[in-house]
Amino acid sequence: MQTYVDCYPCFLRQAIEAARMANATPSQEWEIILKALDTLRSLPKGATPPAIGTQVHQIVREITGSDDPYAEVKRKATEKALAMLPKLREILASSDDPLETAIRLSIAGNIMDFGPNPDYDLWDVIDKMLTQDFRINDLPILRHRLGSADSILFLGDNAGEHVFDKLLIEELSLPVTYVVRGGPVLNDVTLEDALAVGLDEVAEVVDNGARVPGTILSLCSQEFQERFESADLILAKGMGNYETLSEVPALIFFLLQVKCPVIGRDLGAPVGSTVVKKGIDG
Amino acid sequence: MQTYVDCYPCFLRQAIEAARMANATPSQEWEIILKALDTLRSLPKGATPPAIGTQVHQIVREITGSDDPYAEVKRKATEKALAMLPKLREILASSDDPLETAIRLSIAGNIMDFGPNPDYDLWDVIDKMLTQDFRINDLPILRHRLGSADSILFLGDNAGEHVFDKLLIEELSLPVTYVVRGGPVLNDVTLEDALAVGLDEVAEVVDNGARVPGTILSLCSQEFQERFESADLILAKGMGNYETLSEVPALIFFLLQVKCPVIGRDLGAPVGSTVVKKGIDG
Repeated sequence: MQTYVDCYPCFLRQAIEAARMANATPSQEWEIILKALDTLRSLPKGATPPAIGTQVHQIVREITGSDDPYAEVKRKATEKALAMLPKLREILASSDDPLETAIRLSIAGNIMDFGPNPDYDLWDVIDKMLTQDFRINDLPILRHRLGSADSILFLGDNAGEHVFDKLLIEELSLPVTYVVRGGPVLNDVTLEDALAVGLDEVAEVVDNGARVPGTILSLCSQEFQERFESADLILAKGMGNYETLSEVPALIFFLLQVKCPVIGRDLGAPVGSTVVKKGIDG
Repeated sequence: MQTYVDCYPCFLRQAIEAARMANATPSQEWEIILKALDTLRSLPKGATPPAIGTQVHQIVREITGSDDPYAEVKRKATEKALAMLPKLREILASSDDPLETAIRLSIAGNIMDFGPNPDYDLWDVIDKMLTQDFRINDLPILRHRLGSADSILFLGDNAGEHVFDKLLIEELSLPVTYVVRGGPVLNDVTLEDALAVGLDEVAEVVDNGARVPGTILSLCSQEFQERFESADLILAKGMGNYETLSEVPALIFFLLQVKCPVIGRDLGAPVGSTVVKKGIDG
């Protein structure tokens, strides 16, 4: 997905948010915002939002010296998600269509990146995600593809959400490789986060070699690029993966909640909607 | 009030909003956002938010060729406010304390700058503004000052809101000079807007000579600066006037709704609260 002008205010907002997560001093905040302006000014127009976000978060890390400003947010989101597991398993056990339910729960888990907001009732979100119609519904095609695939490459998104992904992986009757980011960036899931919740018990866990809040193939390791190209079927969670892979021809299905009006416009689905969308080829 | 880092995303958001009001083409939108980045990068740190906003809106005018992007928004807000007048007069007529009620209504009118949002029920806002406690309440001091003043310099804010200001002026038993901006900027009230609702029937109407969404004295006409310095008592509506005059020693009272968290932090009053605040001297 291309970057829209509307993304620019949001990059600055993200820079400030990350600066505060990293306990930046006021003068560091100013340094960060000015450097972010320089970066925004100098970037090529064709960059995807996560490509720009990558640079913004790098600025925050460099200026604050904090390598992982979202560590605490990720820890709390994961803890919250783990505490929800027993009830989530009950929901799955009583479902007539465990695959669809597991997909819906995995998409619901994407809301964990509202992590620090204590007012957010996650069960309300889950109820909504379990019942509302998919705004884009390529689930029938996905079911069909699952029937003929030998394995799945599963691109993770946020920490916390990855606990929900584990449930979905348990419902998939195929070998799964779970892909995490190459290092901490935003609240995205890393190898450490994945191992901490035992994702390695249900999938092979690999990192993509890039510290990017999405999947920019050219920045990923050679090894990951080869896995991507030879993948039988790819599931890609969340907005960052959509933004970076929406124009890449691949047998890919995007599973996400629309939380941003710009992405919503790109997808043709309003904020708040749930989407299972097949990629542009496959 | 100083500019905070949090204002920077908002300047870009405003640039995009104004660009769309001016029917900018997509390539004009990009030109505007890039030029706004240059401007933000080069500004001195001490500038108030309206000083920066002034430049952002100038960029939009220059690139789109639209001298008054908010003309239609202002027209609609004014029309809406005029349609509310009969009922507002009834509220005033039945009030035990018409001065306080008129001040509350005038502050409520500040919500008119949510103009284009049709979902916004203005009567709900008015009910709230008529009943909720002032978060900062210097009304007793203002009443006292009104008793000893000979005249009032009344600094207007937005179009639409100025209809509500007219009601307040009618309740003040002193000669009033109503001050408008030196030219169209944002949805702020101009001479034309003021005359269109007959503000000249209840006050002398003057413009301050500066096309700024606030009152930056150094940019105002000599004539206005003299009026300001010699004023007996100043009423200043809205956030833009607060942002530009909060540190100017003067016998001034700010009447406003807090609609921005940054200003709220500066004032010590949360978003949604109503404020009657005496300036730093007088």
